[in-house]
Amino acid sequence: MARIRSKSFWSKYQERYRKHNTLVCIGLDSDWMELPACVRSDHNPIFTFNKAIIEATAEYAAAYKPNLAFYLAAGVKGLEALKLTVEAVPTEIPVIIDCKVGDIGNTMMGYVTAFFDEMGADAITVNPLMGVDVLKPVLQDEKNFCFALALTSNPSAQDFLLKSGLSTEIAAWLKGFNKKQVGAVVGATHAGHLKEMRNLLPEQVFLIPGVGAQGGDLRAVLANTVTSKNEPNIVVNSSRGIIFKDKTESFAEKAGEEARLLRNAIRDGLI
Amino acid sequence: MARIRSKSFWSKYQERYRKHNTLVCIGLDSDWMELPACVRSDHNPIFTFNKAIIEATAEYAAAYKPNLAFYLAAGVKGLEALKLTVEAVPTEIPVIIDCKVGDIGNTMMGYVTAFFDEMGADAITVNPLMGVDVLKPVLQDEKNFCFALALTSNPSAQDFLLKSGLSTEIAAWLKGFNKKQVGAVVGATHAGHLKEMRNLLPEQVFLIPGVGAQGGDLRAVLANTVTSKNEPNIVVNSSRGIIFKDKTESFAEKAGEEARLLRNAIRDGLI
Repeated sequence: MARIRSKSFWSKYQERYRKHNTLVCIGLDSDWMELPACVRSDHNPIFTFNKAIIEATAEYAAAYKPNLAFYLAAGVKGLEALKLTVEAVPTEIPVIIDCKVGDIGNTMMGYVTAFFDEMGADAITVNPLMGVDVLKPVLQDEKNFCFALALTSNPSAQDFLLKSGLSTEIAAWLKGFNKKQVGAVVGATHAGHLKEMRNLLPEQVFLIPGVGAQGGDLRAVLANTVTSKNEPNIVVNSSRGIIFKDKTESFAEKAGEEARLLRNAIRDGLI
Repeated sequence: MARIRSKSFWSKYQERYRKHNTLVCIGLDSDWMELPACVRSDHNPIFTFNKAIIEATAEYAAAYKPNLAFYLAAGVKGLEALKLTVEAVPTEIPVIIDCKVGDIGNTMMGYVTAFFDEMGADAITVNPLMGVDVLKPVLQDEKNFCFALALTSNPSAQDFLLKSGLSTEIAAWLKGFNKKQVGAVVGATHAGHLKEMRNLLPEQVFLIPGVGAQGGDLRAVLANTVTSKNEPNIVVNSSRGIIFKDKTESFAEKAGEEARLLRNAIRDGLI
C-alpha cells in the first residue's frame, strides 16, 4: 500500500516551518557500500539504516530526499527499500524523490505513477531539458510538486547551465508556473549566482544542495535566497553531512545531532 | 546474476549490421496497462510479454530499448521484469536502457552500477544538462555506451533545445567524445534539423526515436543522417508501432512482422 497523501507538498512544507522552524532537507543518499557495519547483516540494510535515521531526525526535518540512484544500485531489494522508506516518513513531512527524470507524455506518466501514486512521495526533481512536456504529467494532480534543475552545484554546470545563460533562461521560464507546484534546484556552490536566481524567481521554493560536503557557504545561501522570515522559500539539503557523519552504532544519534545543528544554524541565520 | 557482457555496445552494433543488415531498435515501452489480455494473468505479465516479443523479433533487431519509466510504474515486480528482460535478450544484441538519467559523481555511479553492472545493459540514454560530470562515470568502462539527448522529438523541444541553439551546442560538445562510447539521441520529427546534426557529428551513432507513432518520416531520416551504407551510424527506434500493433494472442507474431517490415524499409532506403 502506498503512503497516504491527504495534503499537498506545499501545505506540508509550510506547516513544517511554522511548527518546527526547520528548512532542513535530509538527503537519504543511502549508498549501501557506505552503510555502517552494524546494519549490513540485516534483511534490508538500506531500509534498516533509513528507518533509524528518520526516527532520529524527524523533529528537525523539513523534508526527506532519497536519491533514486542509490536504491536502483541495490537492485530489486533497493527499490523495496525506497518504497518502505517513503512509507516510514511521517505523513506530515514531505518526501522528495530525487530522480531528475525528464521524459514526455505516457513515459513521464509512468514516473508519476511510480513515485507519486505507487510510492506516495510528495515531490520529485525533474530535468527540464525537454521543456514543458516534462512538467505537464506532474502538474495534473495539484498535490504534486516538482523541483526543476535550474543551476546545479557540480563543476561541469559550466558546460551548459552557466554557459550562454541557460540557467537564467530556465529560471525565467519557471516563473510561469504555480509556485505551489513548481520549485527550482539551485546549487549552493555558486553563491554569486544565487541572488540572480532569486531575483528571477522571487517566490518559488529553492531546493538547495551543496551545503556542507560540496563546500557551499550557508551564510551566503541565506543572505542571497531568503527574502522573508515569515514566508520561507528555501529548503537546504544535506546528505552525507548528516547521514554518514558517524559509522558506528551511534550513527542515528549522530545524524539527529547534525540535523539539529543545521536546523539551528539556518534558523539563527535568518534575519 | 547479471547478463554477461563480453563485447562492447559498439562491437555488437557493428556486428548486427554486418550479419543481419538491420538498424532497427525495438522500443520495449511495455506499459502494463497496455498489455494484451492474454498475458495479464501471468505471474509477471510484462516479462511474459517482452519475452515473446524478443523471441519473435530478435532476427530483425539491431538493439532493444526498454524505457525505465514503464518498469518503475509497475513497482518492484516491474524492476524484476526489466532485469529479466535484459537477461532474455541474446547477448549479441545490444540493450539500451532508456532512462535519460543525468546526475554526478557517486550518484551517477549508482546508475552505472544499476544498469550496466547489475542488469547487464550495453548502453543507456543520458541527459547532458549537468555537463561532462554526467558522462564520466559511464565512460570508465570502455564497453559502456551512452546516447546523450541532443534533439528530442517532442513538441516542447522548442522550449530549450531548439531555442537559442542549445541542440547545436550539445552536438558540438558531443563531438569531443569517442564515437565508440558516446552517441546522440536525435528525434525524427525535426527533419529540417537532422542534416545539421549530422554535419556537426559526422561519425557518432544517432538513436532516432519518433519514426512511426510520432510522425517522423523514415525517408527524410535516412536521407539526412546516413552518410555511408558501409559504416552505419544510426539506429531507428520504433516502440508502439511494433510491440502494440496487435493486442490479440498473435501479438508477438505481428511484432515480428512489423520489425521485419521496418528492417526492410531501412535496408532498402539506404543508397
